[in-house]
Amino acid sequence: MEPYLEQYLHRQIPLSAAMNVSVLSASPESVMLGAPLEPNINHKSTVFGGSASAVATLAAWSLLHLRLLNEGHHCEIVIQSNQMDYNCPISGPFTAIASLPEISDWPEFLKTLIRRKRARLEIQSVLTYGDIIAGRLKGRFVAFLRSSP
Amino acid sequence: MEPYLEQYLHRQIPLSAAMNVSVLSASPESVMLGAPLEPNINHKSTVFGGSASAVATLAAWSLLHLRLLNEGHHCEIVIQSNQMDYNCPISGPFTAIASLPEISDWPEFLKTLIRRKRARLEIQSVLTYGDIIAGRLKGRFVAFLRSSP
Repeated sequence: MEPYLEQYLHRQIPLSAAMNVSVLSASPESVMLGAPLEPNINHKSTVFGGSASAVATLAAWSLLHLRLLNEGHHCEIVIQSNQMDYNCPISGPFTAIASLPEISDWPEFLKTLIRRKRARLEIQSVLTYGDIIAGRLKGRFVAFLRSSP
Repeated sequence: MEPYLEQYLHRQIPLSAAMNVSVLSASPESVMLGAPLEPNINHKSTVFGGSASAVATLAAWSLLHLRLLNEGHHCEIVIQSNQMDYNCPISGPFTAIASLPEISDWPEFLKTLIRRKRARLEIQSVLTYGDIIAGRLKGRFVAFLRSSP
């Protein structure tokens, strides 16, 4: 799924190409994106907070996108809100790893999506720099069902 | 202050140039940044949430930067956390207007900054698309005092 996702992001969301985002791994369970420092640098030679948050958002969105596609549901996915915590400065290449907060949310989310054609889900992304957890995003997304299997 | 701030942002934070951010107005009371749709577009031909959040973050950071400079305090300013709410899709050029949530926070913030060499402040940015309020960011920043007048 990595080449599909990377091409999709770069083509559809040009800022992902400007940030030089790469897809390190991608599955319906987890998505890991990587980005280098240079295009995302700030005046202190660390990663600009807006870049960190944007890469974390892309990872979270991608996970929901892949997970729904994998089950045959074609949806529009929109971000509704997010909380971002920055733990420490990032001075080099970094990653954002998205996962579901609780696997048990998923069946409920799918049931609502099929019944009401829309449903909300929270996805989290963890930013890592080397072995350090450098930040955390909690994003609330709304999926609108277009077609099901 | 507009040409200074725009050059500073484009030079120090290259993503601001990639997003084609312009400084529409800038003073110690308020900062208004603008950005076009094209470099910030997503797969739905609306503004990517990560771009919206990044421009709102830049506006908030810029306001604190200018306000401290205006009073002669040289500081490092770091974002600690932010909450971002996306109200509606943005289908064209948009703005982010940053302001202080309550003017009365400022004297307390300055007192703490001078006494402890660091202080925290919340700044908000409102995203507008035409006449519509399209989103809102609340950012929590930490300023570290380097030198005072």
